[in-house]
Amino acid sequence: MTGSTKLLGAADVAEIVRSRGVEGTLDELIERLRDALGAHDPATVRTPARAGFHYERPALGLLEWMPAMELGRVIGVKTVGYHPANPTGRGLPSIVASTALYDPGTGALVALVDATLLTALRTGAASAIATDILARPGPTVLGVIGCGAQAVAQVHAISRVRPLEAVLVHDSDPEVAASFARRTAFLDRPVHVLAGDDRQRLLAESDVLCTATSVDVGAGPVVADGEHKPWLHVNAIGADFPGKCELPRSLLARALVCPDVVEQCRAEGELQQLDGQRCGPDLPTLVQQRERYEPCRDSLTVFDSTGWAVEDLVAAELAIELAGRFRIGQRFELHAPGADPHDPYEELV
Amino acid sequence: MTGSTKLLGAADVAEIVRSRGVEGTLDELIERLRDALGAHDPATVRTPARAGFHYERPALGLLEWMPAMELGRVIGVKTVGYHPANPTGRGLPSIVASTALYDPGTGALVALVDATLLTALRTGAASAIATDILARPGPTVLGVIGCGAQAVAQVHAISRVRPLEAVLVHDSDPEVAASFARRTAFLDRPVHVLAGDDRQRLLAESDVLCTATSVDVGAGPVVADGEHKPWLHVNAIGADFPGKCELPRSLLARALVCPDVVEQCRAEGELQQLDGQRCGPDLPTLVQQRERYEPCRDSLTVFDSTGWAVEDLVAAELAIELAGRFRIGQRFELHAPGADPHDPYEELV
Repeated sequence: MTGSTKLLGAADVAEIVRSRGVEGTLDELIERLRDALGAHDPATVRTPARAGFHYERPALGLLEWMPAMELGRVIGVKTVGYHPANPTGRGLPSIVASTALYDPGTGALVALVDATLLTALRTGAASAIATDILARPGPTVLGVIGCGAQAVAQVHAISRVRPLEAVLVHDSDPEVAASFARRTAFLDRPVHVLAGDDRQRLLAESDVLCTATSVDVGAGPVVADGEHKPWLHVNAIGADFPGKCELPRSLLARALVCPDVVEQCRAEGELQQLDGQRCGPDLPTLVQQRERYEPCRDSLTVFDSTGWAVEDLVAAELAIELAGRFRIGQRFELHAPGADPHDPYEELV
Repeated sequence: MTGSTKLLGAADVAEIVRSRGVEGTLDELIERLRDALGAHDPATVRTPARAGFHYERPALGLLEWMPAMELGRVIGVKTVGYHPANPTGRGLPSIVASTALYDPGTGALVALVDATLLTALRTGAASAIATDILARPGPTVLGVIGCGAQAVAQVHAISRVRPLEAVLVHDSDPEVAASFARRTAFLDRPVHVLAGDDRQRLLAESDVLCTATSVDVGAGPVVADGEHKPWLHVNAIGADFPGKCELPRSLLARALVCPDVVEQCRAEGELQQLDGQRCGPDLPTLVQQRERYEPCRDSLTVFDSTGWAVEDLVAAELAIELAGRFRIGQRFELHAPGADPHDPYEELV
């Protein structure tokens, strides 16, 4: 170890992604995450349950830490805040995050990376992987409910695994829905904004649906159950909090629901709404047994995405690697050891 | 919030302490910690149990996160590593730590502070507070078993609340014991190194004893039970891991054992050795009911110190405040929001 800490701020991460290309970055992230999921072994990769603070002042929010250790190699801890008033009140995304990487040989902090964009990208990458296994191939109408920051990466990620014919979008804030076409203009896909009452049309016409809302605890679902294509695949990514759910229970009850992390989805995801028995394969199993689950493409499937620390570790390590390749970021002497490790007062007295 | 993150590396923290003076810093830390303990209210200050990774490769060690929230004001998370091979193998202290402070209004990381020295100082401050309540006043012979980095701050901290007549020290590594006089020369107190077999003399002659060892799990105690002054006060600070204990069970059994955090001491501290019934007041209670517990000065008392996240929050905030006063440290644009919080791709495409 060099003893110094690599720092990558949001501007550095943006420069890394621009240097690699946003599509190239996302494709590489999808590929690395798929590899990590395919090789996942809980004996060597440990991801204890995330924990955190939930509060209502000074603003409604939560701050959580998501640890992951690849035994003998690296420890990553993402700290992620969810503060739904950020976009309107603070000019900040609702999700703000940073990932710290530690050397398990010494305990030293070796890197600190803004993970705000990376969180959107890795969440998109996870949806792309699930969608690629569970959704019908071919031209795809993508429905989006909740058009904030996460939705941009979701649409982009799905576009990397399915050719998008059209994107149907809805947001409880008409202005946020209206700006979505501009924000996804780089994809060159037609975006149709559906007003509140047309949400059911969105459900009916989508081949793949993404829910990425800030719906309040207890206020879901964000769309009523109703007519949909038999092969509908849903990426439900907004539910990540006890009591916060986006999908109708009746829809979940007839779907193959695939959690990213079983226990976490039971506590915070759509699985909250189902009894313990009904649960499909988790994301690593989906990837590891892809042939077994691809036949489910013809029926209703749901990817219950609450976010997994392994996704954050993969994303942060990719950012660090690309930063090295493009010589981006700076180093900071955080721990800076003295000459005598037994003398904390060495330079003080 | 400014939106940028304050960075204080180890060299900055050292400069802060030099600028304020090491005695002034420690005295102020003791005072602030005593105030925080005296005012502690679990309804507004939340300190969930610390958690972490324990492992044996690439080196025996642990990495833990210690969160604390003062509701509505600040969240602090110290990440602390304990790697006993660091001093000999890596030239690093066995304890390496950093504290991150977050704005609960937005989730943004507002400060990152090297907490390696601060951990030693706050652990010393906690011992000073307990010792001031539980040890006999007047000239004091201080015994020290385990002469690493933590011991330096322990001796210094005790010297702020009791006049030290002499310091008797022992370490399983004779070189570490031998260098202790040099490392504490600033205190101008006679230091007597006792060889292995003289540990019992150390127990017998001390008014206050500090154990701060890296004894292996299951290998304690670090001193056999035996003759001691009736009013002996012990600060047991090394036990912070399941199975790691420093004191003889029989000694604990006849002492008033005061944990810093009851549940944590039951899991990781000397309290592991006692049944659930026998437990004295915790550190906040000691401070809040000082008059009630001062009479215990005439009998055997033990402060079971495993480390508390509130201590780390107080220490980090003092460092930040002093950094502002002395214009030390730098700012880093970690999160750097774009113009549109709904558009993570704003500057990418």
